[in-house]
Amino acid sequence: MDLQEFLLNLIIIYSAARVMGEIALRLGQPSVLGELLAGVLIGGSLFGWIEETPTLKLMGEVGVMLLLFEIGLESDLHAFLKVGRAATLVAVVGVAVPFLLGDLLGLTLGLSQLQAIFLGATLTATSIAISARALAELGQLKTPDGHVILGAAVIDDLLGLIILSVLIGLATTGAVSWLEVGRSAGLATLMLATAILIGIFYGHRLGDFLKLLNTRGSLIVASVTFALLLGYLSGLLHIAPLVGAFAAGLVLARTEQLAHIEKAIKPVADVFVPIFFVLVGAAVNLSLLNPFEAANRPYLLLAAALGVAAVLGKLVAGLGALGSKADPLAVGIGMLPRGEVGLIFAGVGLSQGIIKEGEYSAILLVVAGTTFLSPILLKWRYARLRA
Amino acid sequence: MDLQEFLLNLIIIYSAARVMGEIALRLGQPSVLGELLAGVLIGGSLFGWIEETPTLKLMGEVGVMLLLFEIGLESDLHAFLKVGRAATLVAVVGVAVPFLLGDLLGLTLGLSQLQAIFLGATLTATSIAISARALAELGQLKTPDGHVILGAAVIDDLLGLIILSVLIGLATTGAVSWLEVGRSAGLATLMLATAILIGIFYGHRLGDFLKLLNTRGSLIVASVTFALLLGYLSGLLHIAPLVGAFAAGLVLARTEQLAHIEKAIKPVADVFVPIFFVLVGAAVNLSLLNPFEAANRPYLLLAAALGVAAVLGKLVAGLGALGSKADPLAVGIGMLPRGEVGLIFAGVGLSQGIIKEGEYSAILLVVAGTTFLSPILLKWRYARLRA
Repeated sequence: MDLQEFLLNLIIIYSAARVMGEIALRLGQPSVLGELLAGVLIGGSLFGWIEETPTLKLMGEVGVMLLLFEIGLESDLHAFLKVGRAATLVAVVGVAVPFLLGDLLGLTLGLSQLQAIFLGATLTATSIAISARALAELGQLKTPDGHVILGAAVIDDLLGLIILSVLIGLATTGAVSWLEVGRSAGLATLMLATAILIGIFYGHRLGDFLKLLNTRGSLIVASVTFALLLGYLSGLLHIAPLVGAFAAGLVLARTEQLAHIEKAIKPVADVFVPIFFVLVGAAVNLSLLNPFEAANRPYLLLAAALGVAAVLGKLVAGLGALGSKADPLAVGIGMLPRGEVGLIFAGVGLSQGIIKEGEYSAILLVVAGTTFLSPILLKWRYARLRA
Repeated sequence: MDLQEFLLNLIIIYSAARVMGEIALRLGQPSVLGELLAGVLIGGSLFGWIEETPTLKLMGEVGVMLLLFEIGLESDLHAFLKVGRAATLVAVVGVAVPFLLGDLLGLTLGLSQLQAIFLGATLTATSIAISARALAELGQLKTPDGHVILGAAVIDDLLGLIILSVLIGLATTGAVSWLEVGRSAGLATLMLATAILIGIFYGHRLGDFLKLLNTRGSLIVASVTFALLLGYLSGLLHIAPLVGAFAAGLVLARTEQLAHIEKAIKPVADVFVPIFFVLVGAAVNLSLLNPFEAANRPYLLLAAALGVAAVLGKLVAGLGALGSKADPLAVGIGMLPRGEVGLIFAGVGLSQGIIKEGEYSAILLVVAGTTFLSPILLKWRYARLRA
């Protein structure tokens, strides 16, 4: 690909992502939904304006690593230690129940065990970004509800990353090897735990090291390099590079320079991340969603059934907040939005040929549906609680 | 290239660039010199730790566009209009004399007309970054000397971009077509003039448009997209994409959001730009600089001769400040540092096969030499002026 072609691809991706992101926002939706739809629009199944080249793919993969790095930076370990029991219960139930419902649904529909596991996994992870923004808009970010939801979403994310490692292990070996699952999960947990411990005890020393750097841009480049390095080491351990990037964020979250790193990483992530979501959207084959095509109906039914499982699973999880000061129903609703992480799971399944395009499209519908539903239901719930 | 290999390349490039940049800074040198040397170290002629892949090359090319975009953003058209006559004279003489000296030197040494033109061109452009930093360290940024040097450096940059278009036109047609030179220069001038006029009269309206964007990261992504778009359009006109990116910077410099754009573009440029300089450094073949190898002596002599031409040309240019309040010698010394732009010229010549590795290495030596010389001589001159 020559420079002109590359520039044209970037211009189209950024323009479409921004325009659709703005439209989504004006319709009360998160802009990530717009970016995905932008990909659907400019991808092969509609306009066909872009094609996935190796360079775009690599930049998108770095983008999603930077996204997880940033989420790691924003994760306050202390905040969720305080909400403790309720948040953990909500997170664990909120991962287990949707996973089991999705898995059972897959097996009932005659899918293989591996496919069913992928389906279940895509229903597990709550999107921190969407929850946080919806709660902020309702003024519920610094209430017991907000603390439990955000705390649970953080644990959710940790569990989700472990699940991702398990899924990648599974996708690589091609069979359900529980030894492999244990090894993957063990390594991921070990890596995260090590990162957290290093972060707590030595994070500030890393900050002292960063202080030695005087050249312009050294803080951001050193931070990005650290994220890429832990991502690369994860890859060597056969766990997802995302896990390492997230762990790098957790470690650097403990440095004095956190505010500077966060400020500098945002524009960098803003430039890389849309490439990932647009390519994800571009991978959706719209023709599979046509209800007039008889062959598609199973997938559309799958989307509806998965949607019910996704909502039900998280509402049940809300019961974990019983006995705390938080409202169980509001917590359950706050946990509804699925986002990046679920799509990453589905993307891994799709790229490994485990999940097919139709199933991927169904999952995309569920993500869109839950993302759309949560702010509306939260608004309704708080209006009712006030009355 | 798979993700792991790509991550490893990025980690090596960033680590080497940062370490060498820090060492350069501690030795009183600009960090860009360290990044170039980092490339020399990890490139093929020494350790061979990285190889130039298409993805790295494209990212580096976007990086250098972002660098010029940022320089465009920082260019204050009004400031140099005020220093006016002196700055223009210094800039024009400071481009013409080194160019003629370099060209004559090349022809004397038996090079072709095209090669001689490239040699001359690499001696023309003063590095704004290095001048500004050296002056700041000496407290001379807001004096008549500082204004003339910076004003002249800005005009230098405009002239340099026109020269680049001419060079690329020449490199493409393979012969000195003065019609083509006129057309390239005309188009580049027209494009820059249009950008400046649009910037002056409509820049703030572009700011009004940017205000309509509400999604996170929309300002930086829209700005980068604008730079890539003007770069792409430049490419369609057969002028360098850098020219368009620089023009985009000039236009956005007139918007209300300038401060926000500048703040956000810096970390993004910091992540992309080192890839360019490291790859440039990696292209240097060190074995050609061995003085014990008889075949190399012509190139080493070339470096010495070019160095004399480079210094002499800019000292003569300083005389353009006669009659202003600025000190002509200090101005000439302040114009000495060559940097990015000269290396870009040389890089174009190298990639088109016009300049050979040996000549490229000689130019790199001249850049390093002038960059090294200027702060030392400036310090000496101001000590003498005070005495």
